Amino acid sequence: MRVMPPQGVFGNSGHLGHACRRILHDPATSTMIKPKESDSLKPFPASTRVYISGTKHPSIKVPLREIALSESQHPNGRVEKNAPVRIYDCSGPWGDPDFQGDVEKGLPALRNEWILARGDVAEYDGRKVTPEDNGYLSDEHATRFNDKKEEKNRLKEYPGLKRKPLKASGGHPVTQMWYAKQGIITPEMEFIAIRENLGREEAFKAIHDGGSAPRNALNFIHPGQPHGASVPRHITAEFVRDEVARGRAIIPANINHPESEPMIIGRNFLVKINANIGNSAVASTIDEEVEKLRWATRWGADTVMDLSTGKNIHATREWILRNSPVPIGTVPIYQALEKVNGRVEDLCWEVFRDTLVEQAEQGVDYFTIHAGVLLRFIPTTATRMTGIVSRGGSIMAKWCLSHHKENFLYTHWEDICDIMAEYDVSFSIGDGLRPGSIADANDLPQFGELEVQGDLTKTAWEKGVQVMNEGPGHVPMHMIQENMEKQLNWCHEAPFYTLGPLTTDIAPGYDHITSGIGAALIGWHGCAMLCYVTPKEHLGLPNRDDVREGVVTYKIAAHAADLAKGHPAAQYRDNALSKARFEFRWEDQFNLGLDPEKAREFHDETLPQDGAKTAHFCSMCGPTFCSMKISDEVRQYAEEQGLTDTEALQKGMEEKSKEFADQGGDIYS
Amino acid sequence: MRVMPPQGVFGNSGHLGHACRRILHDPATSTMIKPKESDSLKPFPASTRVYISGTKHPSIKVPLREIALSESQHPNGRVEKNAPVRIYDCSGPWGDPDFQGDVEKGLPALRNEWILARGDVAEYDGRKVTPEDNGYLSDEHATRFNDKKEEKNRLKEYPGLKRKPLKASGGHPVTQMWYAKQGIITPEMEFIAIRENLGREEAFKAIHDGGSAPRNALNFIHPGQPHGASVPRHITAEFVRDEVARGRAIIPANINHPESEPMIIGRNFLVKINANIGNSAVASTIDEEVEKLRWATRWGADTVMDLSTGKNIHATREWILRNSPVPIGTVPIYQALEKVNGRVEDLCWEVFRDTLVEQAEQGVDYFTIHAGVLLRFIPTTATRMTGIVSRGGSIMAKWCLSHHKENFLYTHWEDICDIMAEYDVSFSIGDGLRPGSIADANDLPQFGELEVQGDLTKTAWEKGVQVMNEGPGHVPMHMIQENMEKQLNWCHEAPFYTLGPLTTDIAPGYDHITSGIGAALIGWHGCAMLCYVTPKEHLGLPNRDDVREGVVTYKIAAHAADLAKGHPAAQYRDNALSKARFEFRWEDQFNLGLDPEKAREFHDETLPQDGAKTAHFCSMCGPTFCSMKISDEVRQYAEEQGLTDTEALQKGMEEKSKEFADQGGDIYS
Repeated sequence: MRVMPPQGVFGNSGHLGHACRRILHDPATSTMIKPKESDSLKPFPASTRVYISGTKHPSIKVPLREIALSESQHPNGRVEKNAPVRIYDCSGPWGDPDFQGDVEKGLPALRNEWILARGDVAEYDGRKVTPEDNGYLSDEHATRFNDKKEEKNRLKEYPGLKRKPLKASGGHPVTQMWYAKQGIITPEMEFIAIRENLGREEAFKAIHDGGSAPRNALNFIHPGQPHGASVPRHITAEFVRDEVARGRAIIPANINHPESEPMIIGRNFLVKINANIGNSAVASTIDEEVEKLRWATRWGADTVMDLSTGKNIHATREWILRNSPVPIGTVPIYQALEKVNGRVEDLCWEVFRDTLVEQAEQGVDYFTIHAGVLLRFIPTTATRMTGIVSRGGSIMAKWCLSHHKENFLYTHWEDICDIMAEYDVSFSIGDGLRPGSIADANDLPQFGELEVQGDLTKTAWEKGVQVMNEGPGHVPMHMIQENMEKQLNWCHEAPFYTLGPLTTDIAPGYDHITSGIGAALIGWHGCAMLCYVTPKEHLGLPNRDDVREGVVTYKIAAHAADLAKGHPAAQYRDNALSKARFEFRWEDQFNLGLDPEKAREFHDETLPQDGAKTAHFCSMCGPTFCSMKISDEVRQYAEEQGLTDTEALQKGMEEKSKEFADQGGDIYS
Repeated sequence: MRVMPPQGVFGNSGHLGHACRRILHDPATSTMIKPKESDSLKPFPASTRVYISGTKHPSIKVPLREIALSESQHPNGRVEKNAPVRIYDCSGPWGDPDFQGDVEKGLPALRNEWILARGDVAEYDGRKVTPEDNGYLSDEHATRFNDKKEEKNRLKEYPGLKRKPLKASGGHPVTQMWYAKQGIITPEMEFIAIRENLGREEAFKAIHDGGSAPRNALNFIHPGQPHGASVPRHITAEFVRDEVARGRAIIPANINHPESEPMIIGRNFLVKINANIGNSAVASTIDEEVEKLRWATRWGADTVMDLSTGKNIHATREWILRNSPVPIGTVPIYQALEKVNGRVEDLCWEVFRDTLVEQAEQGVDYFTIHAGVLLRFIPTTATRMTGIVSRGGSIMAKWCLSHHKENFLYTHWEDICDIMAEYDVSFSIGDGLRPGSIADANDLPQFGELEVQGDLTKTAWEKGVQVMNEGPGHVPMHMIQENMEKQLNWCHEAPFYTLGPLTTDIAPGYDHITSGIGAALIGWHGCAMLCYVTPKEHLGLPNRDDVREGVVTYKIAAHAADLAKGHPAAQYRDNALSKARFEFRWEDQFNLGLDPEKAREFHDETLPQDGAKTAHFCSMCGPTFCSMKISDEVRQYAEEQGLTDTEALQKGMEEKSKEFADQGGDIYS
């Protein structure tokens, strides 16, 4: 028997950065993810789950997390109530304390009714699952292999409800894009519209109607929109439909993954983030796999990519899909390679096609496919600092060189599209030639492939298939905008989905930060989804803490981008937290943060006493020096003065600004 | 006796963000910094200290850290030597393994000879140190207070060499700016020119002479320079002089701090970072204070601000200055406030003046002075989300309101300049009205103060005093550029020195990251120095790990900015690290990073065996799948094909780019 290379635990690294990192996982020494149900199912403090119902489709119930706030105690004795804050919640039913989950039964099939109601899909006897799907030569091999293992590590088929797969039966695609083009607003679209507004339609209205709401009404900054992002007054279902019809946004929603809660990826919506997970070769119990998924979505992963390789890959995926409230992406060439025992030369269209159908029937929502790695680009990587670093890219480059033939993913693109259209699997067109270092950023192979991605995008759209484009990687700050502009131009405004990018290569151990900078920047410029990077990038396999650090870092990048794009609902949470901070409402400050547990823990390192979190600020600062008290004095002074001074100043500043603008903003005049 | 508020340990927080955070330090519960000499004095792996001598001034010896690299083992058997990499080193003599340091004697007076040789300074009997300088009412009070303490916590005067203070004696300023304006290239300027080139003049030359060096010669990206930064071919002493003369850069170098190694702050140089330290009220031993300084500079702090408050403030500062190889900044109003027992109303020019002289004689290199907080701006903060959050700003606002008078720092600005000019203390004009939240970014009080900073800058320059301007704070990404442009315009291109800025308020516990994003961005736009933020920001007092995390995060931001500005020497290190990474030279990858210890530790969590770090890549990847082997095959293929394909592709891409440009770069056409 061939020795299989070991695989990753969390964030199997084939997808990120360096092709060879996948081998880093030595089962004997890796830090296994210990399932701690109590951790990933623990409710966030002061939080309740609320649902908002649809109007057009009353069966819609959009989940949000609502954070209750305490009252403000002003120095003059005034007490002010603070409205609760609702936030986007990726955790699905697992995040609802009322949900009595059972991983063996899976999540409720939320979308099933909507899918069937469209009357254009039919059940059929799906492709038979073979031993090869799980990496075995035969049933006998599987048995022999598994008998040697401890009970908990054996191949376990998913025991829960088995549905027959669905596929299109109406002679047309069953994609959200197809419906959108027909003018149909699906329940998925309405769900998304409600979700993206975060229940804050009123706030949208207030600022867009030109009202100057008082500061304490949590008003908003003026929009930034540097690159043509056009955020509407508020997100309507019709706007969602229009964006999907134009290809500017996708709703990854395989009809065989009815458990998923609809979400949208597009630059006129909240910036999304992806987290990678991957099975462990030897010791993945069911609970562990589901735990990884729950852990990543608890902290805010909007989609999850399952980058598993090796044994039991089909069974693992089934467990993940049946329990996932977020869309699941995969890189099918990884499994296809397993099916030909890791021999790249033996890959062929038939094996790949079989894998696509297998995964589409299971319910995978988007596929990374490296169809842009063309034979003619490969020699152009010869002079690079870091060659080809994408695993998918390396596989296809080697295949092309071995056969001296064009990439079969490219030559079979239309066949692939036909399969995707029948299940509504979205494309995430791979960037197999992305740069692996600052030195290789924005070079010929990278942009050559991007241009091909544009052609592939057009073809897919003609077939009714939803598309996003994958992007780099490693790019210094000043070269990021060019990536975004070329992608928008060449790929016809399809959503962009990037890995970071890392803005410098000199900080192994801190690449969540080097890449978080690039992610925030490209998110602002219009990138729709950011693939997370953990502190272990380039070095080893992320553990639970690394995944949390990576997800939170990327939520920061995405939110910073949302603010900079001027997304009207974004700043509400910043304002609520800042107000709490200024008013020394410590608990509220913790609870409104992305990671309440860490904030509280850091605070308690210095001041563990309970009193420190509830004490009135003045007893902490002493009577002579308290910034809130000073601010109160300032407010009183301002009232006495009337607003004359302020208005005069404002006028003066405006004149200065005008003068500056009149000089053409030239700071060197 | 009045109860003194407790003070901070590392990064006394008065300077950062929220005025009241300074009270967070409860001595009973704080995590004290345990001096671990072995840690901060531990040499970095594979590193040696090298010195480069000056030419014009042969006494100059510029320290760099040189990292030795191993050989590359190519798949075809070829062995390639890799040149060592030299990097900027802030650790001073403490980072030189040959230095036999003694904190009680202090560092060698590196610059003394240069200062005296200019013949324009004279020793004098300095101001008498009084009990009030250390927070005591009398000598008797000091004795009584200290007798109650453990031996190690008592006030200890600095025992080392006591020099008499120097001040200007030639009837003109003794500032680097004054010399620069006379056309004099000081030894400090030549030192800086060598230091900024990182010993890589050859590399500068290679790219600027238009040579297309081969990839493996570590060539550079093309410059970004979005906002007029003009990086020269390489840094010459004359260029340094010219930038200082124009006020575009400062060399903080008090004549009474001869121990400091010259460094420059200006946007046409490497971006610098500052770390804050502050004494602990009760239990600061000498070693602890010096250890904080060493620890911050070991990781790369270019300057350190001593934000101590409370008891023993004068003695603490003496210990720090005598042992600091980097410029030290302070906020003199903090000590002035101690001298009037914390009663803001009792502050006056005489006490402040006395404090300036006291600190100038000790050798403080730059003073933060909040002279732009004018009476008329104060009421405009009344409608803010978070009022006034700068400690210095709150103090001055309260003073102005109490007296209904204009800020005495403003009215005495010329007097202050006269003192600074006599010692070459640089201004860091404070931003007392900086925004404390995203909601308050770029508002009237902030920009009103900035405009006044511009007037103050001009006056200081007329007096020959060096100036930088402090900036925010909390600013969303799309509003950062406006800060930089207004500062350059209104403050006549004086260097900008910002706190972050934080780009979102929703992540307490991760504010090194929310602010690292803003820091990188504003650094790219031209900000000259970035004040670090640690993960404990807004929550508690940073411990050693937090300081390390904060400094490394800010080194990342500064370096990402240097790359984006196109600083020619910056990318050398990225390229060396990327090459090591691609070639599986694990040790080299660790050693070239900003934090070799963490990189190694992360790697060892997954693969602790020594073999994993020295094994040839192919034995790790297995023979069928190795990206380096594939790259080798690619190179061979490219040679067989000739470069025809590549050239054709290149041409095609150029045409595409041209077509795009011809459309005016309009992506929505």
